Amino acid sequence: MNEKHLGKGSTNVPLLKGKLRLYSMRFCPYAQRAHLVLDAKKIPHDVVNIKLSDKPEWYFERNPLGKVPAIETESGACLYESLIIADYLDEKYPQRPLQSKDPMQKAKDRIQVEHFSKIPANLFKLFHGGGDDTFDAILTDLDLFEKELAVRGTRFFGGDVPGMLDYMIWPWFERIDAFKIVAPDRFVVPTDRYKKLNEWKEAMKEDDAVKITYITPEIHAEFINSIKTGNANYDILVK
Amino acid sequence: MNEKHLGKGSTNVPLLKGKLRLYSMRFCPYAQRAHLVLDAKKIPHDVVNIKLSDKPEWYFERNPLGKVPAIETESGACLYESLIIADYLDEKYPQRPLQSKDPMQKAKDRIQVEHFSKIPANLFKLFHGGGDDTFDAILTDLDLFEKELAVRGTRFFGGDVPGMLDYMIWPWFERIDAFKIVAPDRFVVPTDRYKKLNEWKEAMKEDDAVKITYITPEIHAEFINSIKTGNANYDILVK
Repeated sequence: MNEKHLGKGSTNVPLLKGKLRLYSMRFCPYAQRAHLVLDAKKIPHDVVNIKLSDKPEWYFERNPLGKVPAIETESGACLYESLIIADYLDEKYPQRPLQSKDPMQKAKDRIQVEHFSKIPANLFKLFHGGGDDTFDAILTDLDLFEKELAVRGTRFFGGDVPGMLDYMIWPWFERIDAFKIVAPDRFVVPTDRYKKLNEWKEAMKEDDAVKITYITPEIHAEFINSIKTGNANYDILVK
Repeated sequence: MNEKHLGKGSTNVPLLKGKLRLYSMRFCPYAQRAHLVLDAKKIPHDVVNIKLSDKPEWYFERNPLGKVPAIETESGACLYESLIIADYLDEKYPQRPLQSKDPMQKAKDRIQVEHFSKIPANLFKLFHGGGDDTFDAILTDLDLFEKELAVRGTRFFGGDVPGMLDYMIWPWFERIDAFKIVAPDRFVVPTDRYKKLNEWKEAMKEDDAVKITYITPEIHAEFINSIKTGNANYDILVK
């Protein structure tokens, strides 16, 4: 998981028998979605990290778009798009189902994930110079999730344990505290506005699957700052 | 299906026992996706058309985003987002399954639908003054689907009969010929470049579900031209 990121001129690591391959980038929130599903369901897999600023030539045969995450099965079939991968894994591997068996509840959770997609778009804007308007839009969207948790009345969106919705939105919550470090004066999230979400966040940090890929706000901030210098340091966590 | 579109100040039509409600707009390609799934699976439903330029106040209780399509169940539960509705209907109503039972094939079809989403975005651009670059981007994306049909070697993307992928992309193919009428000199689709897609298009027109909502290129062009005047004529087909 913390292996060196492979770039142009590299050769791919051979597939392992009995293991799914995940192509990832250690700091990519979309790739983390796939990690979380694989880890929550304990699906045997290995990870190959891709240097997104200098992609290996061979990677485009796995994903013509060149993005992460992608998965490759033992037989060489490849899939990409984080939500499609997540659904595939949950259907293919029946252990620890992450989605409701009720089609209506499942669909409602998918609508929530869809709603959430505005937040990553606005976070991206914020990183690239967006101002108070963008920050306010994020806070307004977070209100919906605060309210949704209250309506559901459960510890996690999925109930007593995290479900698909919890895992699909978690990667951005893990990164929110990095903002305090990157821009301490500008973007302060009012904590009492998100009481339930904060409790949820603390509970998520204790989840076994979340713990596996968890990165501290300090390290996230270090990575974000490296992007800002135009020289993304993908290998911060390489031992 | 061809009822008058309801606007501000209207009251909603009461739900019917034993019927699903579809909120639609007669010319909306996304709403047509929901129609096609309902019709292919023969799910009993009625249709309420929404005047998108002047939305009824009560509609925001069904879909807070105010967009179509949305569905409402007998018990008043609502769903929106065309792809989420389509998946919900296919899961909830087992007759005439539209997706592959194989999770990998199902995921690959979803990736194709995802790829396709660039085409509506570029068609929208084209309507609003986009030029040859935008048109070329559409043609390049269509190449992928021409190739995909050749690889699958079947009459439809779904095999011998249309499947979810066929229905999810159809609404934009139905509208393509309207371009020839709206802008006869500018956007000419080279037919020999899309031999398989053209055969597919003709076969789709013979499908029972497609026939139900099918609108001729002339009528589509009339609607498009009405949008361009700033006064969309939703009710062209009202008898």
